[in-house]
Amino acid sequence: MKPVRVALLGCGTVGSEVVRLLHEQAGDLTARIGAPVEIAGIAVRRLGRDRGDLPVDPALLTTDALGLVKRDDVDVVVEVVGGIEPARTWLVEALKAGKSVVTANKALLAEDGGTLHDAATEGGADLYYEASVAGAIPLLRPLRESLHGDTITRVTGIVNGTTNYILSSMDATGASFSDALEEATALGYAEADPTADVEGFDAAAKAAILASLAFHSRVSAADVHREGITEVTAADVASAKAMGCTIKLLCIAARIDDSVSVRVHPAMIPRTHPLASVGDAFNAVFVEAAAAGQLMFYGRGAGGAPTASAVLGDIVAVSRNRLAGVRAASESRYADLPIRPMGEAVTRYHISLDVADRAGVLAAVAGVFAKHDVSIATVRQSGRGDEAILVIVTHAAPDAALTATVRELQQLDIVRSIASVLRVEGIEAT
Amino acid sequence: MKPVRVALLGCGTVGSEVVRLLHEQAGDLTARIGAPVEIAGIAVRRLGRDRGDLPVDPALLTTDALGLVKRDDVDVVVEVVGGIEPARTWLVEALKAGKSVVTANKALLAEDGGTLHDAATEGGADLYYEASVAGAIPLLRPLRESLHGDTITRVTGIVNGTTNYILSSMDATGASFSDALEEATALGYAEADPTADVEGFDAAAKAAILASLAFHSRVSAADVHREGITEVTAADVASAKAMGCTIKLLCIAARIDDSVSVRVHPAMIPRTHPLASVGDAFNAVFVEAAAAGQLMFYGRGAGGAPTASAVLGDIVAVSRNRLAGVRAASESRYADLPIRPMGEAVTRYHISLDVADRAGVLAAVAGVFAKHDVSIATVRQSGRGDEAILVIVTHAAPDAALTATVRELQQLDIVRSIASVLRVEGIEAT
Repeated sequence: MKPVRVALLGCGTVGSEVVRLLHEQAGDLTARIGAPVEIAGIAVRRLGRDRGDLPVDPALLTTDALGLVKRDDVDVVVEVVGGIEPARTWLVEALKAGKSVVTANKALLAEDGGTLHDAATEGGADLYYEASVAGAIPLLRPLRESLHGDTITRVTGIVNGTTNYILSSMDATGASFSDALEEATALGYAEADPTADVEGFDAAAKAAILASLAFHSRVSAADVHREGITEVTAADVASAKAMGCTIKLLCIAARIDDSVSVRVHPAMIPRTHPLASVGDAFNAVFVEAAAAGQLMFYGRGAGGAPTASAVLGDIVAVSRNRLAGVRAASESRYADLPIRPMGEAVTRYHISLDVADRAGVLAAVAGVFAKHDVSIATVRQSGRGDEAILVIVTHAAPDAALTATVRELQQLDIVRSIASVLRVEGIEAT
Repeated sequence: MKPVRVALLGCGTVGSEVVRLLHEQAGDLTARIGAPVEIAGIAVRRLGRDRGDLPVDPALLTTDALGLVKRDDVDVVVEVVGGIEPARTWLVEALKAGKSVVTANKALLAEDGGTLHDAATEGGADLYYEASVAGAIPLLRPLRESLHGDTITRVTGIVNGTTNYILSSMDATGASFSDALEEATALGYAEADPTADVEGFDAAAKAAILASLAFHSRVSAADVHREGITEVTAADVASAKAMGCTIKLLCIAARIDDSVSVRVHPAMIPRTHPLASVGDAFNAVFVEAAAAGQLMFYGRGAGGAPTASAVLGDIVAVSRNRLAGVRAASESRYADLPIRPMGEAVTRYHISLDVADRAGVLAAVAGVFAKHDVSIATVRQSGRGDEAILVIVTHAAPDAALTATVRELQQLDIVRSIASVLRVEGIEAT
């Protein structure tokens, strides 16, 4: 049986695991695919580097990725390098030439997925990217295949392991953000430059990919409203606890009427919500669909072996398609929905205010909410010497009205400071 | 564009939801498939029954299911009747004639899935059955597709909503099994004859389907060791609580060396385990794979709309395959693994004994464990007048050694009674 020939672009943590799995599982893979998988070549940045006991002929290594992609004996291109360029050039070249592509490159898919999908259509090629979101969790395939007889209304996910580790640790120990980040860095959960994680860029890229699949529309990273977790304080975490909640960095993609709202920000969720118990560096994605109801997918979102598992699953799928002479469902894009501005997203706020403890304060504060048409769900007031703390949770309202309310509260002279402002999510779902 | 013609067998709770979804989502489905889906006919038991506002021409209804299946203008057969016969005859007929089959029939798949798979191979037809296990949760497709580059080592599931509702309610209120069952019946979560649920038959059928897919081997319901929840007492639930555990009816399928162990029984799991927070009538399946690590899939396991969502997803998949002129991955069966007897399954026991409170009791009890080579993990002893309670949790041991230990403990005259014996699972996973 003619083998399926794979060009591997990148041989770092994920790439070397892919090589190891292809080698160790060769027999199983041949049985599952109906033909053996062979590595045609591996593009690396430097040839000289020590690759330990990587089970591969060193002659397969090359620094000429584009040359490897163009070779006639390559059927499938697997890209685990990341970044926009030169990855985009390689993958477009492969797809236009009809080669199947398996990629874990969330940044490229989120910034310019359309170019890849168009190249795939042009070349009649498969484009698979299960590993780009939530690592090992089989999530994209279910979204794009199992649920396509249903209508997804909302996707809420914890899709960044670093920030989930930091927030879980703040929740468990009461640590500050900076202490928890330091610990995460020491343990290898955060990178030396943690910006992409803690500022929500990584989660925003994944949110764009999820929203595109869930709503059959093109959503790019630039469409995602993004707030990171650097301003989450130990006081916020304590406030959440007092409310029976925990704080998570959520990505939320919702279909509202005929538009799409996609945002990434920290939010309080009730401890009874299925996402609340997703701890440490785990990922989970909660999906709400019209007929299926509530679904959740949970697992490891990163790491060499989990990501490689997702890549392998895609390699098997595209290889089977090649042998059958077919192409899988391409991008299911038929609803080019407009992006709803963040101000029109509907959410709830939890606001904790330090106020002067005197008569009329609550009336003044409530007046500001009323002025912006924001309905208050609960108020908790506790005295403390000559000042008091007001903890207010609103009903659902447009984000613009909520931010305007907070801005005006800051102007009130009876408000000494705003101790904490956090969105609250997941109350409907429990 | 030539439509895809569907014959629907059965029009009860699930079937009428399928009709409704096909009608409501007609536009979306056409876009996703590339051709419209038409109902060619609906086989029902009685024609006269009032079907409310079912959006379908009454002329499409027939009592001749086999005749409908055989019609030349039928491309896809959707079966939501259940039971072994006549469903098997209908589906074998359809598959051998090359018609795609979508079924939710777990009993048939678990008892005689081989016959269906063989007929599918003979006819070159698709056989999809996402709705047969865990209703709306996209689970089978990920198991058979996304993870096929990985090696699944163990699947632990809560796959029966009725028993999960009963056990959740016993856990929440301290109710007895019979009171909780009565409540579940009153609320419609349990059927008038609850045997299939509470005795674990339903879960055993699903366990067989999951094990077959996870381990690429044929496992039938008869291969599954099965114990129901009728003997779980309020005292068991209280013991579990004292241990920081909760009791769930689990289906556990494990690959051990080159054999498969499949069992369904109630077990204690730590409250920190992801499966512990799966409450009410929800289902969840926890998967452990060599590379992917721990994964969990959560959602509604039953009900008309959730099950119909899974059926629709399969209809879209088989319709796309037909239009592309291809057949999906068939049964991935290449490892015909032997079934490991229950006695060789490795588990832990929690045993609660009422013993005489006198010297030497612990030594005598410990001697019985040692004789059967069962290692004790923890012992908790509490006095109560002239008797004491010993709560023992073992290390992992073969089930045969554990049952022999319990049998011999019953013979000891210092053991007044054995208050509770339960397996403990999921300790490794947390």
